[in-house]
Amino acid sequence: MLKNSRSFRIEWGDCDPAGIVFYPRYFAMFDHSTTMLISAASGLSKYELLKKYSFAGYPMVDTRGKFAIPTRFGDDVTIESEFTKVGKSSFEIEHKLMKDGKVCLEGFETRVWVSKDPADPSKIRSTPIPDDLAAKFRGE
Amino acid sequence: MLKNSRSFRIEWGDCDPAGIVFYPRYFAMFDHSTTMLISAASGLSKYELLKKYSFAGYPMVDTRGKFAIPTRFGDDVTIESEFTKVGKSSFEIEHKLMKDGKVCLEGFETRVWVSKDPADPSKIRSTPIPDDLAAKFRGE
Amino acid sequence: MLKNSRSFRIEWGDCDPAGIVFYPRYFAMFDHSTTMLISAASGLSKYELLKKYSFAGYPMVDTRGKFAIPTRFGDDVTIESEFTKVGKSSFEIEHKLMKDGKVCLEGFETRVWVSKDPADPSKIRSTPIPDDLAAKFRGE
Amino acid sequence: MLKNSRSFRIEWGDCDPAGIVFYPRYFAMFDHSTTMLISAASGLSKYELLKKYSFAGYPMVDTRGKFAIPTRFGDDVTIESEFTKVGKSSFEIEHKLMKDGKVCLEGFETRVWVSKDPADPSKIRSTPIPDDLAAKFRGE
Repeated sequence: MLKNSRSFRIEWGDCDPAGIVFYPRYFAMFDHSTTMLISAASGLSKYELLKKYSFAGYPMVDTRGKFAIPTRFGDDVTIESEFTKVGKSSFEIEHKLMKDGKVCLEGFETRVWVSKDPADPSKIRSTPIPDDLAAKFRGE
Repeated sequence: MLKNSRSFRIEWGDCDPAGIVFYPRYFAMFDHSTTMLISAASGLSKYELLKKYSFAGYPMVDTRGKFAIPTRFGDDVTIESEFTKVGKSSFEIEHKLMKDGKVCLEGFETRVWVSKDPADPSKIRSTPIPDDLAAKFRGE
Repeated sequence: MLKNSRSFRIEWGDCDPAGIVFYPRYFAMFDHSTTMLISAASGLSKYELLKKYSFAGYPMVDTRGKFAIPTRFGDDVTIESEFTKVGKSSFEIEHKLMKDGKVCLEGFETRVWVSKDPADPSKIRSTPIPDDLAAKFRGE
Repeated sequence: MLKNSRSFRIEWGDCDPAGIVFYPRYFAMFDHSTTMLISAASGLSKYELLKKYSFAGYPMVDTRGKFAIPTRFGDDVTIESEFTKVGKSSFEIEHKLMKDGKVCLEGFETRVWVSKDPADPSKIRSTPIPDDLAAKFRGE
């Protein structure tokens, strides 16, 4: 399955009065890691991807975070992201946030590929992941 | 000119490692106060407003914040918001964030009323504020 | 077990280009709901609580979100929060975000009560939940 | 005066339902740019800096943003940051966010160097910027 990683420094504004990352911000970091993993597969930014494939995104259905070691502003960290399952219209990804070679937290997510409902464009519905992308997600 | 105020408690997640509000979050608070001021004028949520008047929003052109007294999680504060200028397709608002009767910070903003450019829907352009709304903004 | 609920309007700034809440923001909403649930038990703001009991907070150990129905800016929603387990130094809470009487998403969280490590104040360690608070969390 | 720049991709989660950056997020980007500018001067992360110089940070006193061209998720942008004034205990910085060689928005900020008030550690007060840092900020 396809993997990707990205490294960055934890920002002051991501941290709370305890001096450590406010955990909802980890999910924002994971969301961007998912986008960068899909960009690694497609060679496109998310904006370009949405235009090319005429779909509405890959919203979250189920996500979990398990937190072991806090991180704080100034820490240089790496998120490793990997597809763990690629279905017809849904997929799963696991993220590990690493600092100094240690896993600080893990994220698990199940997302669904969606397009606008032709009957009501204010609604979305699941739609198959394009074959060429699904193959790249699987690392084929 | 129309005024509105709203009161709320400062959240842990709005604060930084110094224990006080991370200042970009004040701008998010002011943005919602602007929306609630316009809702007070129109009787509509922003979602309903965008649908009824077929426009694309009121993005920021110029904003300023002046910070006097820090606030922190658990503080009960009030934001007072007031139109200070209503032009043909732009308007100005001032916000004051108050705690215990004291002004902690002030926000100033100039926004423009926009619609999608018919020639290129990925672009926006300024458009006149509807007359009925402009009159309410002016408190007429 | 103790329950609490709070109602608020979804903000424009909580939503993403799909027009629906950017899911990490739901975790920020749940975090504040947890704080308000604990305030309902203690009668204190989080700032006052940290001072009174000389502890360092209740960081997240494990959390999960299950998403069923999207919500968008202008939606008036309610989060119902309830303790589901109160241990010696950890506790579990479930949140349900409701709109028009329907559950839109659920959040599950396990947190630990911590204090600063006397041997190294830059570190935290688990510490027993004070008895009077634990009893209130259990609704006794 | 010292300058620094950093480049990054605009994230989906930084954008609002209009598909463009939610403007408070620009201030968070500028805040990190200020931290990276000061890190360029000191060779230290903000965490290391706070420890080495025993101070409490450089909170915002006055900031302004002027917005010309929207940016959206997937855009690769650069923020150029420069000290424009370095006083005894305060300093000014200007930021320009660039895309494809064009200035999309400008940020202006006045901050103050603070330490904890010895008489009441819950309060902060202005304190002189250390001479060695001030010299580096000025590019001497």
